[in-house]
Amino acid sequence: MGWAIALHGGAGDIPLTLPPERRLPREVCLRHCLQLGVDALKSKKSPLDVVELVVRELENNPHFNAGKGSVLTSSGTVEMEACIMDGNMKCGAVSGLTTVVNAISLARLVMERTPHIYLAFDGAEAFAREHGVETLDASHFITPENIQRLKQAKEANRVQIDYTQPMQKKEEDTATADGDSQTGTVGCVAVDSDGNLAAATSTGGLVNKMVGRIGDTPLIGAGTYANSLCAVSATGKGEAIIRGTVARDVAALMEFKGLSLEEAAACVVKERVPKGNVGLVAVSATGEVTMPFNTTGMFRACATEDGYSEIAIWPLTKD
Amino acid sequence: MGWAIALHGGAGDIPLTLPPERRLPREVCLRHCLQLGVDALKSKKSPLDVVELVVRELENNPHFNAGKGSVLTSSGTVEMEACIMDGNMKCGAVSGLTTVVNAISLARLVMERTPHIYLAFDGAEAFAREHGVETLDASHFITPENIQRLKQAKEANRVQIDYTQPMQKKEEDTATADGDSQTGTVGCVAVDSDGNLAAATSTGGLVNKMVGRIGDTPLIGAGTYANSLCAVSATGKGEAIIRGTVARDVAALMEFKGLSLEEAAACVVKERVPKGNVGLVAVSATGEVTMPFNTTGMFRACATEDGYSEIAIWPLTKD
Repeated sequence: MGWAIALHGGAGDIPLTLPPERRLPREVCLRHCLQLGVDALKSKKSPLDVVELVVRELENNPHFNAGKGSVLTSSGTVEMEACIMDGNMKCGAVSGLTTVVNAISLARLVMERTPHIYLAFDGAEAFAREHGVETLDASHFITPENIQRLKQAKEANRVQIDYTQPMQKKEEDTATADGDSQTGTVGCVAVDSDGNLAAATSTGGLVNKMVGRIGDTPLIGAGTYANSLCAVSATGKGEAIIRGTVARDVAALMEFKGLSLEEAAACVVKERVPKGNVGLVAVSATGEVTMPFNTTGMFRACATEDGYSEIAIWPLTKD
Repeated sequence: MGWAIALHGGAGDIPLTLPPERRLPREVCLRHCLQLGVDALKSKKSPLDVVELVVRELENNPHFNAGKGSVLTSSGTVEMEACIMDGNMKCGAVSGLTTVVNAISLARLVMERTPHIYLAFDGAEAFAREHGVETLDASHFITPENIQRLKQAKEANRVQIDYTQPMQKKEEDTATADGDSQTGTVGCVAVDSDGNLAAATSTGGLVNKMVGRIGDTPLIGAGTYANSLCAVSATGKGEAIIRGTVARDVAALMEFKGLSLEEAAACVVKERVPKGNVGLVAVSATGEVTMPFNTTGMFRACATEDGYSEIAIWPLTKD
């Protein structure tokens, strides 16, 4: 037993040749966010507060695909989504945000101030305004780098405008996007030394996604899940994560099959979702942590009360 | 082994005193839709075609809360959502539709003609128009009965405009809505004699829901799920179904714990979701069928190849 925290900045096809100007700012941010979360846990903040705090910081960093830095739809707009859940099954989610600075905090507000779990698009934006949540002009979230990524994606006809193409082809195209352009969803999971758990995930989605597309991030049991056993935040190809009910399946394998956190997460990532599609971070009520992925890499960091810490992008050892 | 089909028109607090003018048209529709589905299965239509066909018919019937007859948001508008999935994990979902006549067919089109699974609100409506899907003015879907239901709900301050009230209170209010006004989500599951499976669910959501609210129906693993073992369509209090990942949990209990379809569905409905919140219909790859609920009643019907058939609203035997 003891506190533990893990966070990610997206899993995907991250080339080993990733240039330093793309690698270093993300590593700096992961390190900073890990410290922020560890300090908050040590000062007895609730895991729910901790994951919100960390994800806000990741959203505010333009090097990740959430908040400022969100990738663009086929129309060149941002549509942000997020989800938060704690071990008591309280949860909130939002999709289709265009002006809200911190989607994760709006998700928490939906959880705490409405009879619902999930608000989307205009209704979610109106709710944000009613509650005086910080908003900025939609152009604030758009970075020059993401304008470039959309241009490249359109030139390559990825994610997909021509519906006449067979779907399998299109999905392959999406999965094999160049470099790290599809990477960057952010998430955090935390447990305190009393076994209280929380998970949070936030994203801008896929480069060149159709307007109105919802991914795995805001869906309870797909990109985000927590119960009394564990908390999970997933990242990768959203459609594969939805089909695989990835976050719920980690918990279900623990609950129904008696697997450990590490076994359950490894089973989902290595055996149940096609290679190249998914990564996740997870902590258990007893303070275990695991961060498996079946992609080239995953921006990730973790720390536990007994002194283990890791900040990494690619696999730690070759296998 | 053999074909089987089950369908529902919503679970909820359906009073035993339900007047004949509300009961009879629904019973007639359930009987008609069951026959339609059975005939389609006998004529070797695929389960995916069968569940779409049956749900379209239920959507077109104004006595159920889907398509024409959808209940109204707090703004007096309709926002329809639907989901379809087959045993090969192909799936499509839509939310926030205001003019599409058959949401379930648009969900199928998202599945078949986009690289995504889930489109919502303006983007989903635009996609419908691009594909020439049948649409009608939003007023077409609004019935006098639902205008009345919204008025009553607003008078009772249910589902919830005053966010200053504690959330628990609000949720109780929602669950104990008068008569059958919260009931009526529709769904269908089917399996053919080769074990091919499909599930489909469609709804207008909750009376007086906030604009932008997404419920369980379109969420893979919550209101709708299918894999190689079973197909499930759930109905009831959406927020409880989302938290319970109800449809996925039925399949997960079969897959990870080796329960039969009936055992798995009973476990979810009787033990894992609070009483008064949920009902579901499910079929297995081997042709079993089950229709448990923990509400007062569920509009439901089923048939199997070996001659079993049931059309009912309340429990068949007292217990």
